[in-house]
Amino acid sequence: MDFSELLRRRTVRRFAQEPLKKEEVRAILEAARLASCAANLQRLRYIAVMEPSLVAAILPHTAFGMMVHPKRQPVAGVTSPTAFIAVCSTCDPNESLHADAGAAIQSMEFAAWNLGIGATWLGSHKQAEIAALLDVEKPGRILYMVALGRPGETPCREDVDADASVKYYLDADDCIHVPKYTVDAITTWK
Amino acid sequence: MDFSELLRRRTVRRFAQEPLKKEEVRAILEAARLASCAANLQRLRYIAVMEPSLVAAILPHTAFGMMVHPKRQPVAGVTSPTAFIAVCSTCDPNESLHADAGAAIQSMEFAAWNLGIGATWLGSHKQAEIAALLDVEKPGRILYMVALGRPGETPCREDVDADASVKYYLDADDCIHVPKYTVDAITTWK
Repeated sequence: MDFSELLRRRTVRRFAQEPLKKEEVRAILEAARLASCAANLQRLRYIAVMEPSLVAAILPHTAFGMMVHPKRQPVAGVTSPTAFIAVCSTCDPNESLHADAGAAIQSMEFAAWNLGIGATWLGSHKQAEIAALLDVEKPGRILYMVALGRPGETPCREDVDADASVKYYLDADDCIHVPKYTVDAITTWK
Repeated sequence: MDFSELLRRRTVRRFAQEPLKKEEVRAILEAARLASCAANLQRLRYIAVMEPSLVAAILPHTAFGMMVHPKRQPVAGVTSPTAFIAVCSTCDPNESLHADAGAAIQSMEFAAWNLGIGATWLGSHKQAEIAALLDVEKPGRILYMVALGRPGETPCREDVDADASVKYYLDADDCIHVPKYTVDAITTWK
């Protein structure tokens, strides 16, 4: 898949119920490990969750698509993700670690898309409950969760000008529309 | 370029002195605008600097390769970047905005690599001085700088285990070596 196709990637919040293969999740983690990070310190660690009962136990502690909540919250066993990756830090998080996490997750999202796998980057998750399920000692070190699975929806991107709303929304056919500013809307040239 | 080639991307800190084309920088910004971000809020803005005297004026206010500093600080007019992109926020930055910036920068780095362009993500930059040069009212809103240019070096990645040092270093031939943890070193499977 060439880069222009990778840029068609969108967040997927509804998943088909066909499990992922371990080598697919490993390929996604390969993209995480090779992402940019501050001073090459590599202070992020990953918990890859593929065991179905554990994936199911995590799901209620996540929140998908807050702008259309609860309409894009996956239904367990129907549209739910088939794997999660917990993105954790080796030390108490700061802005630099969040930037590292953003880079690693973006890289994983491309890797997933390249394999025909959908992903949701989740910032609204219950750290304490998920930490208990994953045996993570310090819940605050679970920075983000990434939900994975084969896509069960096809989001639609719309390019908009600087004065437009960027709220994503569901249309009458239950398709999610995602407005994205054009380059001109967000760039000053000097 | 397919995804496995994109993953060969490494930070480039020495640049050839051939200028970039505006459409190349625009393609890099296209990758920024399509990056993942929290709630699709798109709170990042970009200042693309291609004017040679302004690029030169910014350079002294940046710090490249802190682990080998000053040995990978570009020399003006010899190994210096030929463009900068300032990654700015529309509001006071928080962890979520830093995560968004990380995602956008990772996406830009892939876009650059795809075009044969090298990039350095800079976190150590003098905000006040650069803000004055770029007419940015609130210096704290310049989260990161990205230096761009045609590559003038070929960094070498090394895959290492969990107990290895991740300090990057210069060898006797002045080539930079970048140790990266393997997937096994940073992943727990559940």
